[in-house]
Amino acid sequence: MASDVISSERVEGTNVYNVSGDKLGSIDDLMIDKLSGQVRYAALEFGGFLGIGTDRYPVPWSMLRYDTALDGYVVPLDKAQLEGAPRYADNAVPDYDDAYRSNVDKYYGL
Amino acid sequence: MASDVISSERVEGTNVYNVSGDKLGSIDDLMIDKLSGQVRYAALEFGGFLGIGTDRYPVPWSMLRYDTALDGYVVPLDKAQLEGAPRYADNAVPDYDDAYRSNVDKYYGL
Repeated sequence: MASDVISSERVEGTNVYNVSGDKLGSIDDLMIDKLSGQVRYAALEFGGFLGIGTDRYPVPWSMLRYDTALDGYVVPLDKAQLEGAPRYADNAVPDYDDAYRSNVDKYYGL
Repeated sequence: MASDVISSERVEGTNVYNVSGDKLGSIDDLMIDKLSGQVRYAALEFGGFLGIGTDRYPVPWSMLRYDTALDGYVVPLDKAQLEGAPRYADNAVPDYDDAYRSNVDKYYGL
């Protein structure tokens, strides 16, 4: 069995699926609490798959569940939810400060 | 103040110091538990600074302490400890399986 401890570079690029097992996209970036070393957000990219462009979508890490059968993460998201979701261009990563994180968490009801 | 939540790409490259505040090197890679999202090891590179070559040194994350004044991580390590420490070539990252992690933890007395 592959190790559960892998390079951040390998977590990035891991596929993301919806709860039906349809591939939505992949993880583009991990946002980490530099003090604790805990991943707080995954920036997801949906590669135009959902017809929603190439923006990055920050999603609280607690919403991602690793599925060993899929070898990827399952997120309880659909296109309708993502249409209004916080996002940013690949080359315009915002400061993940308290206000920004609070905004993201609020959008997802956390 | 800069956010405490930053991209994994920014954690990588952060300087690493000894307890005296001397720069030892930097973080080259983060090894993450893909289930929990917790960083378990930092792979450090010492850039020849200590005269110990370009290998990567896996160090348990719990040994790193973020120092806001230094804007970097402090690790209680010295050259003598590193001379016998687990290491690998940049292009030969091992599988961080139970046995390997156990070996690293044991070296550092964890």
